Amino acid sequence: MAAALALSWRGRGRTAPNPNVGCIIARDGQIVSRGWTRPGGRPHAEADALDGVDARGADIYTTLEPCAHKSERGPACADLLVKAAPARVIIAAQDPDTRTNGAGTARLRDAGITVTEGVRTEEAHRAMAGFFTRQAKGRPHVTLKLATSLDGQVALPDGSSQWITGPEARAHAHVERALSDMVVVGRGTVAADQPQLDVRLTGLEPRTPGRAVLSSEYSNFAQLQLKADNPVWQHLESPEAIADLENVDYLLVEGGAGAAAAFVAADLVDRLLLYRAPILVGTGLSALGDFGLAQLDDAHGQWRLVETRMLGVDRMEVYEKA
Amino acid sequence: MAAALALSWRGRGRTAPNPNVGCIIARDGQIVSRGWTRPGGRPHAEADALDGVDARGADIYTTLEPCAHKSERGPACADLLVKAAPARVIIAAQDPDTRTNGAGTARLRDAGITVTEGVRTEEAHRAMAGFFTRQAKGRPHVTLKLATSLDGQVALPDGSSQWITGPEARAHAHVERALSDMVVVGRGTVAADQPQLDVRLTGLEPRTPGRAVLSSEYSNFAQLQLKADNPVWQHLESPEAIADLENVDYLLVEGGAGAAAAFVAADLVDRLLLYRAPILVGTGLSALGDFGLAQLDDAHGQWRLVETRMLGVDRMEVYEKA
Repeated sequence: MAAALALSWRGRGRTAPNPNVGCIIARDGQIVSRGWTRPGGRPHAEADALDGVDARGADIYTTLEPCAHKSERGPACADLLVKAAPARVIIAAQDPDTRTNGAGTARLRDAGITVTEGVRTEEAHRAMAGFFTRQAKGRPHVTLKLATSLDGQVALPDGSSQWITGPEARAHAHVERALSDMVVVGRGTVAADQPQLDVRLTGLEPRTPGRAVLSSEYSNFAQLQLKADNPVWQHLESPEAIADLENVDYLLVEGGAGAAAAFVAADLVDRLLLYRAPILVGTGLSALGDFGLAQLDDAHGQWRLVETRMLGVDRMEVYEKA
Repeated sequence: MAAALALSWRGRGRTAPNPNVGCIIARDGQIVSRGWTRPGGRPHAEADALDGVDARGADIYTTLEPCAHKSERGPACADLLVKAAPARVIIAAQDPDTRTNGAGTARLRDAGITVTEGVRTEEAHRAMAGFFTRQAKGRPHVTLKLATSLDGQVALPDGSSQWITGPEARAHAHVERALSDMVVVGRGTVAADQPQLDVRLTGLEPRTPGRAVLSSEYSNFAQLQLKADNPVWQHLESPEAIADLENVDYLLVEGGAGAAAAFVAADLVDRLLLYRAPILVGTGLSALGDFGLAQLDDAHGQWRLVETRMLGVDRMEVYEKA
């Protein structure tokens, strides 16, 4: 299942509104086929793994319950699996989509296939967070990225921020972009830094996500867009407007402090991605603007550390909503 | 040697100007005696461990090269060891004190004792950092403590900071006080918070260190002292004045942002002790004031992460000067 989960990450940021599922077919403990939901959402991971493979009597690991509903773009995965006749299907997470939600596993069991559920479920929810957030909340999954010094500054008082973090952390941030359907920045950041927000990693350039600018006034946005001669930006009037973005399940908010605070204030941040350089800055620009915190008690119990590692001399931390 | 190093930490903050040494006597791999430099600096760790023990043919582990110089307070440890006639003496770090510096080990070797040096040297330098800093730089070892939110804030805009971190992190900070000879805060912090700066851990209350207030004007300090009716505070006119403090080898700077910046600006911070709560604060008070950083390039390459662990929901990090 760990291998299936790794495969599911491949589709992250490219399969919306379909879930980025991973699938492994194994026989006698040996992997005989791999599949993942392909860019655009088809084929599904199970169909991808089953393609050209005899899976009779095999074990099939899938990160999400196989879909029970046909669509014009392909057959239901549950039917495909029944036809393939594996001995066992192992599932990480149940599909919350009401068209499947238990119906997929029921169909497998009815066909005499042994079904094991609940294997590495938490990791599956993390790997396919965009799909689960969309299902539960009707909006994309939002990651807020902050790259700071040890004392929480993102730039010197004059705005200079090249560079707080080192090349490894910056490369990782580009991978995070590649795993997103869309990147959002505030109007001030565009005006000040004119960021490209593209993926500058060899071979991953085509993975540059959609780009949006948060700006409460459309006229301000339009002016900015005109000046920068950049027609690919979308306009976001408010953080809440992310619910209307099409084919966006993974959203990455890259700053600045005002845009970050707007998403925090709207309670629309699911995941904090922190890069911390081993430097002190002193007086500078803070990572996060005012989001209306009235007392410290209210700030507690919201975030849980789920991952941390070194990236060169910098430390990366990932926090999720508790 | 790990056990000897643990013992050396017991004396930290209590043995200045003597080094806080740890010593273990072992025979056939079994520990037969333990010693550490006692509060006030005597007896030395080796004398403490040898007291009432037959060490002939044994292995003696000591975190610092045994002293070669007699004093009116006791004999030289090298002589004590020669008399005890162990088979082997294992030493973590050489004594930089010019009265010993190699003379201790030479005396042991002349007496036919096998001497092994350089075992866990880095950890020994860390454990006895106050002594080594005093020897190398003629001033105490300085730890700067910062307790912040994930976005680097130490308080809300109105100054309220109870609490950023949880009880485990706060208890750990009190242990750090107990391991210090002196705690320093800025004048503003005293005026605003009237901190006790005592050790509020059951059984460790007597370990409350000396307390000093950083204030460039003595009259301001005197006024503050009078108002607070607190005769135990010492006055520090500037960070550089720490060199003149007597019997202070471990100094803990607890803030606020101005005092912290003054020590950073004077390049007098050897160790950063960071507690980070999993909370966001937004606009608030930053941990560190202006210390004159001109460009980001100058900030890099100064700090190295040497320890990190969770304390309840908070993360502790220790950085040392690189």
